[in-house]
Amino acid sequence: MSFDPKDRFSRFVRTLQEEICTRLEHIDGTEKFIEDTWKRPLGGGGWSRVLTNGDVFEKAGVNVSQVHGDLPDLLKDQVPAGSKHFYATGISIVLHPKNPMIPTTHANFRFFQVTDYHGAVLDQWFGGGMDLTPYYLFEEDAHHFHKTLKSECDKHSSGFYQKFKLWCDDYFYSSHREEYRGIGGIFFDHIKPSQELNGEELESFVYGIANAFLPAYLPIVEKRRGTLYSHENKVWQEIRRGRYVEFNLLHDRGTLFGLKTGGRIESIFMSLPPIVRWEYNQILEKGTPEWELQEVLKKPKNWL
Amino acid sequence: MSFDPKDRFSRFVRTLQEEICTRLEHIDGTEKFIEDTWKRPLGGGGWSRVLTNGDVFEKAGVNVSQVHGDLPDLLKDQVPAGSKHFYATGISIVLHPKNPMIPTTHANFRFFQVTDYHGAVLDQWFGGGMDLTPYYLFEEDAHHFHKTLKSECDKHSSGFYQKFKLWCDDYFYSSHREEYRGIGGIFFDHIKPSQELNGEELESFVYGIANAFLPAYLPIVEKRRGTLYSHENKVWQEIRRGRYVEFNLLHDRGTLFGLKTGGRIESIFMSLPPIVRWEYNQILEKGTPEWELQEVLKKPKNWL
Repeated sequence: MSFDPKDRFSRFVRTLQEEICTRLEHIDGTEKFIEDTWKRPLGGGGWSRVLTNGDVFEKAGVNVSQVHGDLPDLLKDQVPAGSKHFYATGISIVLHPKNPMIPTTHANFRFFQVTDYHGAVLDQWFGGGMDLTPYYLFEEDAHHFHKTLKSECDKHSSGFYQKFKLWCDDYFYSSHREEYRGIGGIFFDHIKPSQELNGEELESFVYGIANAFLPAYLPIVEKRRGTLYSHENKVWQEIRRGRYVEFNLLHDRGTLFGLKTGGRIESIFMSLPPIVRWEYNQILEKGTPEWELQEVLKKPKNWL
Repeated sequence: MSFDPKDRFSRFVRTLQEEICTRLEHIDGTEKFIEDTWKRPLGGGGWSRVLTNGDVFEKAGVNVSQVHGDLPDLLKDQVPAGSKHFYATGISIVLHPKNPMIPTTHANFRFFQVTDYHGAVLDQWFGGGMDLTPYYLFEEDAHHFHKTLKSECDKHSSGFYQKFKLWCDDYFYSSHREEYRGIGGIFFDHIKPSQELNGEELESFVYGIANAFLPAYLPIVEKRRGTLYSHENKVWQEIRRGRYVEFNLLHDRGTLFGLKTGGRIESIFMSLPPIVRWEYNQILEKGTPEWELQEVLKKPKNWL
């Protein structure tokens, strides 16, 4: 294979991490990211950056990992016969704002490559996406987020937004609650060069979407950061964060894969919200904003 | 089979529920249990009792369920060929105290029976146990809890305590953290009449252990309820409660089985603590009480 984005993409996620952290620190205005570097005993490691107790972000994590080594058994049925080594790099972003009027967001962009005994590339693909988990629904925010994603997708392929939007809804489903984690976004995995998009075009799509993260999310933060909220709003945010924890620990294939393959626990769990609440059998009053959000989470919606 | 404890045990757990709730309300002194009854669409239902925001208990759940119907596919490889219907009843107790000096406790006692097309009993067994999850370690409390269990076990079989203590340690292991959920107790499952204990003797063991729950736990509550604690102690409790959530959602076979077989979500999740905290990469100072607890959780200990 002549198309080999490994080094470019690896540099890209580090640069993006730096850019995102700088912008988030600027917006937060009070706290800074702390970086931990870690080594994976079997090969590679990562740079975890976490900001806590900021003025805007109660907990923000922007992690990059670059891991490689012998292919884990868990992955053998997903790759061509003869695959021996793997290389994976990616950036994961989870932002838990303090103000419950600002949604939590998650984004992830990753590249995976397998090689044979001699180092020849046998398979490689991209995955990624981003989604929004509001505590209170502002339709215009959902519209802005999805519109930004659709505009970027449309530059690359007319079918991507619709396809990856449905994929996202499907992925972030909490079957035990019969509800969706949030109001979606886009999600894609195992995407490879095709007749429609060659390798460079595909790579350009991934960079484009990754660069669309800040424009998709930050205007919502700016718009809602000054909104007043009550103790009850905060309690509701903490209860909904409980659903976020439930999804991540019960259903999220990324989290469970990380735990099974010996990923760094603290980096995997940076996605968990800072303060969470479980209230027994909460009944919402019909017509309240909390009830309205819960209704919206029962069925994916077209936001555009 | 002439030994059929189904009706007796079913009454027993309801009576025990009443007794435990009455005692806990008395000890709490401020709040009362609220009972919700629920129906399982496929047969049976339950009585869930929860007390919240008490003076002693931040959240206390004492649930009884009695479910029956067609044997779920998930269970078919655990029972004799020809099994068609099942009946299961049990009591589950999870107490999350407000004061971090009082440990969280969990107990469960259950009976399971399968019958063929004609209603003839093909197999039946008991399961249960109880365990302690402290936030701060008081060795004398651990000793009292385990001693109470051992004394009761010893009345029925000299080997039970040791066997069921090890089973408990083994069950409540959080492999992803390489630590145990708490300081153990006893756990047993699929226990049936044997040469050593006939049906009535076995039933008497289960009643004996279930009745030992209050004597094992309440003296600890009484001893610690007046202990002063700081905001930092409470934060530590909330962080450790995060580990409790992780265990329950990632590893607890009871929770995962309940979710898979369509149990009532609110009753299953009454085990989750009321307020929980995840702090990124907390490093404990060596020699502090928090560090000491964490060290103890790395390896099961003989408390007697």
